[in-house]
Amino acid sequence: MDSVNLKTLAKKLNLSISTVSRALRDSHEISVKTKQKVLALAKALNYEPNPYAGSLRKQASRTIAVVIPEVANNFFSLAISGIEEIAQLKGYHVLIYLTHDRYDLELSIARHLASGRVDGILLSVSSESNDFLHLVELKNKNIPMVFFDRVCEEIDAPKVTTDDFESGYQATVHLIEMGCKSIAYLMIAKNLSIGQKRLEGYKEALKDNGHDFEERLVINCSNDKEVNYELIKGVLAGANRPDGIFASVEHLAIASYYACKDSGLSIPEDVKLVSFSNLETAPLLNPSLTTITQPAYLIGKEAATMLFRMLEKKPINIEDQHLELKSMLFQRESTA
Amino acid sequence: MDSVNLKTLAKKLNLSISTVSRALRDSHEISVKTKQKVLALAKALNYEPNPYAGSLRKQASRTIAVVIPEVANNFFSLAISGIEEIAQLKGYHVLIYLTHDRYDLELSIARHLASGRVDGILLSVSSESNDFLHLVELKNKNIPMVFFDRVCEEIDAPKVTTDDFESGYQATVHLIEMGCKSIAYLMIAKNLSIGQKRLEGYKEALKDNGHDFEERLVINCSNDKEVNYELIKGVLAGANRPDGIFASVEHLAIASYYACKDSGLSIPEDVKLVSFSNLETAPLLNPSLTTITQPAYLIGKEAATMLFRMLEKKPINIEDQHLELKSMLFQRESTA
Repeated sequence: MDSVNLKTLAKKLNLSISTVSRALRDSHEISVKTKQKVLALAKALNYEPNPYAGSLRKQASRTIAVVIPEVANNFFSLAISGIEEIAQLKGYHVLIYLTHDRYDLELSIARHLASGRVDGILLSVSSESNDFLHLVELKNKNIPMVFFDRVCEEIDAPKVTTDDFESGYQATVHLIEMGCKSIAYLMIAKNLSIGQKRLEGYKEALKDNGHDFEERLVINCSNDKEVNYELIKGVLAGANRPDGIFASVEHLAIASYYACKDSGLSIPEDVKLVSFSNLETAPLLNPSLTTITQPAYLIGKEAATMLFRMLEKKPINIEDQHLELKSMLFQRESTA
Repeated sequence: MDSVNLKTLAKKLNLSISTVSRALRDSHEISVKTKQKVLALAKALNYEPNPYAGSLRKQASRTIAVVIPEVANNFFSLAISGIEEIAQLKGYHVLIYLTHDRYDLELSIARHLASGRVDGILLSVSSESNDFLHLVELKNKNIPMVFFDRVCEEIDAPKVTTDDFESGYQATVHLIEMGCKSIAYLMIAKNLSIGQKRLEGYKEALKDNGHDFEERLVINCSNDKEVNYELIKGVLAGANRPDGIFASVEHLAIASYYACKDSGLSIPEDVKLVSFSNLETAPLLNPSLTTITQPAYLIGKEAATMLFRMLEKKPINIEDQHLELKSMLFQRESTA
């Protein structure tokens, strides 16, 4: 099968190759009518530009990369859907790279991207990273970049997050209102603002309600499910066990269900549980899970919109440089 | 920041550029000792080859693409982990492309990949596709390709699946043994062998146990959650409503929970439910869900292993061209 190239298109349309090429690049020098004619034929003949040849000239791969810790987390799968909605409108492909929350993988992906594989990057930082030099280097390559959810405050790039402080505050107040006297905070990403802000919200809520903050109740969790399960079981085994758990990410809530079950503790009678989560099955769990639900789809959409503004060299308002979208508390049986 | 290129490496090592280049390409003309020296320095200086320049010469991007319907499905997130384990061992990056089970997106991604962006492709076909010409075209580009889970029988490429017929048979027999007289089969991917084989297993199990097959109990579901929910509610509303449901994919089980709940039907008292699923929360649901669980991680790992054999031009045994790995039934409360 002969491949369709610019020459084929130009010949069939009786236009010059350069006109066709500029029409495909959406150049302002070409009329809308001509562009439409060219695009229609290109589509009909399945014309696919050689991404390598094009890229050598002007680094336009018409792809964006989404670098995220994991996909087995409903927040990220919803955020991807939001990103893809915008990317499809713009005619871009979306490549997803997973760091598995590992610094070494994030580093390797950053270097891979630094060599110019994509036109723009949406990034949610690995929670194990505490050195961000690789991201600074990537940013210095002048590849447009937007952070979302797990952002790196140290780098001057647009950011889209939820109201982590307020949500952490609200979740803790809710547990206090439901009668909890001793609330454990299951933490991840302690090096990132997301982890810190949720912790600050928790602390502030304790203070405002006359509860003492106890360092022992802040549990530093990892991304290893077995380790987290054992950690939570340990916390629940002590004499001074907490009667409330605030999980800062979805997988810690699931680990808490198993830890409570295997410790012979009932949710919510013995331990009340609230978690940041976009888990689709939250209302179906036994008991159903009270969640702080992030507007994941919208976060993805807004982050992608911001990235395309950068790709199109449009300005971003200073007040939008860090966009903060509100999460919502859904009260269910786990805190009844 | 000056970027490190072949010239920099050559100068520092006092070698010719061509020697450095061949060492990095693992050429047999270069000694192991020299290769190690070159690789060590390349690593120390964060040398990253320009993927476009390299690719124009020999199409070696050191990336593989994974094309899948969705990530909000635990089967695929586990399969990706299996794929990435192998890819990391081989020093390859993994790019994930989502089709959202849409034919038009799969087509667009196939054309994108046909232009030579990646070295190899792992593909799980969109359940809405009933025309596979775009995959035939992709295959004709001689890009190594392996199908997994949702395979396209019409294309001569290695395949890794589970034992779809046997699993469909087993799930249906289990419902019959638990007392079900009228079992609905919630089907997707009716154009793919995965959908057909699971259906055949269901039919055969009915026959072997003296149950009549009823066309009305085969429910053609889509990928639209709302539509599926309404479909299932409709099935449960009739006078001859089924007392058993066999869901062929995870999201149909979740839709069934909601449909039963909103129809005032109890699982398992009124309706027993079994589903293909790798849902992490299956044991935590109310009631816990009986699942046919696929070896998702292993399927990903085997498919990737096969792809790398192709990339390394190693032969694949004829009996491994279609590898079938066994799924397992986990009996829980939803069929008690």
